[in-house]
Amino acid sequence: MPTAALLMTGSELLSGDIADTNSQFLAQQLSEYPIELVEKLTVGDDLSILQSNIERLSSNHDVLIINGGLGPTTDDLTAQALANSAKLELCIQAQALVHLQKWGNARNFVIDEQQKKQCLLPGGAQIFPSSPGSACGFYLNLNNCLIITTPGVPSEMKTIICEDVLPKLYELLGQQPTASWQRFHYFGLGESSLQSLIQEQFPKLYEYYEVGFRAQLAQVELKLKPIDSSECPAAINEKRACCEALSEFEVARNGHDIIDTLANLLIDAGKNLGLAESCTGGLIASRITRKAGSSSYFSGGIVSYSNEVKSSQLKVSASTLEQHGAVSAQCAREMLNGVFLELKTDYGIAVTGIAGPTGGSEEKPLGTVYIAYGSPDDISIMGLVIPFPRQAFQDIVSQIALDGIRRKLQGLGENERMFKRYAIMEYSKS
Amino acid sequence: MPTAALLMTGSELLSGDIADTNSQFLAQQLSEYPIELVEKLTVGDDLSILQSNIERLSSNHDVLIINGGLGPTTDDLTAQALANSAKLELCIQAQALVHLQKWGNARNFVIDEQQKKQCLLPGGAQIFPSSPGSACGFYLNLNNCLIITTPGVPSEMKTIICEDVLPKLYELLGQQPTASWQRFHYFGLGESSLQSLIQEQFPKLYEYYEVGFRAQLAQVELKLKPIDSSECPAAINEKRACCEALSEFEVARNGHDIIDTLANLLIDAGKNLGLAESCTGGLIASRITRKAGSSSYFSGGIVSYSNEVKSSQLKVSASTLEQHGAVSAQCAREMLNGVFLELKTDYGIAVTGIAGPTGGSEEKPLGTVYIAYGSPDDISIMGLVIPFPRQAFQDIVSQIALDGIRRKLQGLGENERMFKRYAIMEYSKS
Repeated sequence: MPTAALLMTGSELLSGDIADTNSQFLAQQLSEYPIELVEKLTVGDDLSILQSNIERLSSNHDVLIINGGLGPTTDDLTAQALANSAKLELCIQAQALVHLQKWGNARNFVIDEQQKKQCLLPGGAQIFPSSPGSACGFYLNLNNCLIITTPGVPSEMKTIICEDVLPKLYELLGQQPTASWQRFHYFGLGESSLQSLIQEQFPKLYEYYEVGFRAQLAQVELKLKPIDSSECPAAINEKRACCEALSEFEVARNGHDIIDTLANLLIDAGKNLGLAESCTGGLIASRITRKAGSSSYFSGGIVSYSNEVKSSQLKVSASTLEQHGAVSAQCAREMLNGVFLELKTDYGIAVTGIAGPTGGSEEKPLGTVYIAYGSPDDISIMGLVIPFPRQAFQDIVSQIALDGIRRKLQGLGENERMFKRYAIMEYSKS
Repeated sequence: MPTAALLMTGSELLSGDIADTNSQFLAQQLSEYPIELVEKLTVGDDLSILQSNIERLSSNHDVLIINGGLGPTTDDLTAQALANSAKLELCIQAQALVHLQKWGNARNFVIDEQQKKQCLLPGGAQIFPSSPGSACGFYLNLNNCLIITTPGVPSEMKTIICEDVLPKLYELLGQQPTASWQRFHYFGLGESSLQSLIQEQFPKLYEYYEVGFRAQLAQVELKLKPIDSSECPAAINEKRACCEALSEFEVARNGHDIIDTLANLLIDAGKNLGLAESCTGGLIASRITRKAGSSSYFSGGIVSYSNEVKSSQLKVSASTLEQHGAVSAQCAREMLNGVFLELKTDYGIAVTGIAGPTGGSEEKPLGTVYIAYGSPDDISIMGLVIPFPRQAFQDIVSQIALDGIRRKLQGLGENERMFKRYAIMEYSKS
């Protein structure tokens, strides 16, 4: 199997200033191809270090992906290092210049000499045209190694990898994606429960598939890759049975998430959704509206962070706030009524809780949250304690609330595992 | 200056399944010492690859930190690879065994032979005793390099690094923490403008400081590290003059962000903030409420994604929506009035725009946005075109809006660079 290396460049990656998320993305993409990623090296913006590592890595591997160092500033050295390693001159690459000028025109930028440095590439370099940024990625051959360069800006890197590089890998190496990992995303059961369930009930899966698990904060993933490139009927049957056993918890597949699933369910049902958020403070609305197309099912929300806004916008009664407090089942219920009354949506979510790090009490500890959700004639209220730090708390609460709507739309009951784990009150339905 | 390398081990780091957060932590810790982290290499669980890289890295550097591969399973190979590289025998290390047995006793675990593998270390290895897990880290010398091993579990690694390794670095290398990086975060001018400005107006900075730049989506960072461990008065004066010249654009320092700055400004002024978000869909509210303490200045917001919610909750008039459309200066202005009327806050932000990828027209292309912001007696409205993909558009719009409030609270005028770059209409103030 051909081998690959990643060379991540940028002194900011060695100072600890930024988290390198690019290399994980690149590794994930390569894992779908019959190419073995053998090493990933991170170095700073230093010409001789870049050069010696380009020489070493290109001699040892079939593919080398270099990330970063394509910008206009003096510490962007990838093109120079490659030119030195390959003993090529740097010259203005016409296609890169056209790209840069187009990019500048769209933004009313006059392209100056410093910007043009991004077009100064090793002779013979082939441009990847899809970059949405000012710098193009490019590729060339050195030491029988296909060297691919991509910008360090994550969105630009991702576009180039998906639109240009992966098709090019196929074309240049004659490699096509192998049987891909099939990914199933679950919410509401833990990684070890998932693993035990599969080992006990579906041991045959291991005969047909490489099986992997991955726990994230508010989700767990099962991944399967057929051992034979074509899945035999027995494999498909075993997988189907396993998926059925877990279907209650399945929030999405193959890199989609619960927002995608909920969007499809709501659009198919011709229904819309409205929100009243206190402790999540707009997170649920933002998760929904980060994705294109949300206007077809999302009407809006009220971020009722203060009690005044709970009263004025959601009509939560003064007596509820006085007698039960803002973090109470009663308040969540009235907030949800406010959604139906004010935003007039078919489905609604209302959350109120104590995200911390302060504000807890003996009676209502940090992490206490009430979530009311459903449609006007099918309302559920959960009272839970989610003992996690602020942002993790918000993430988990948003996931529980969204998953509550998913379960209603799919005709499922409440998630009893979730409830057992975190509950402080019985479910109430009305 | 002594140099260091990190060797991150584990096949899961090359499959893209997990994000490597350990190496960022390690890099941050080292950046406070006068040790230069030169390279960071990630390889899988492969004995010969580990061995050859241990030999290479220990020959080239003064310190090598190896992370991972200390556990009980067969793919934990760090001790074996080190023993091979150093031509030492593996033997049960008594102190590690005592640690393991204590760890087991505390958990009612009987320590079996497989667990004991964690105590099989190269002869002469010195134990780091602080590990909260079953495996200890250890150190030894090879090729005049101090080799430090730490477990891969982040919490165990962090404990060992902070309690044992950093004091040991001080003791063994006679090195103590140096001057840290000072970081200045700017918004509203680009990376190359910032760099030119500093090169032209403050060239002396380079005599006194290591100078670095980092562009993020909606922010650019200048970082300075004194070349002499104590900053001389001339250095401080030059830095102060530079900071003053850039103060208009400064949104935060040293890892804080505009939300922190805005929080301080609003709290100091005893004012609060309310929002009306259409195209940002709750992102601004969520950015604010991700941070603790936001309730002291943030009242809430209305995510008026649909026109119905703009009318019902923000009292945007039907005639405005009909004549000018939801994406218009008039609508933004009425949304902001709605904030003042309904949420009764001192300051407000209203945004309405076309985030895409669909919904653009010739008259109002994708990326068109109107932002109204200010206080009831000092309202500004900007009309801009931000030609970026959906999420980047939302991020930039949120930053522009928040920065607008910062500038008002700091008594600054509008950001003219921003306006020149993106404007589609004159500023309107009222």
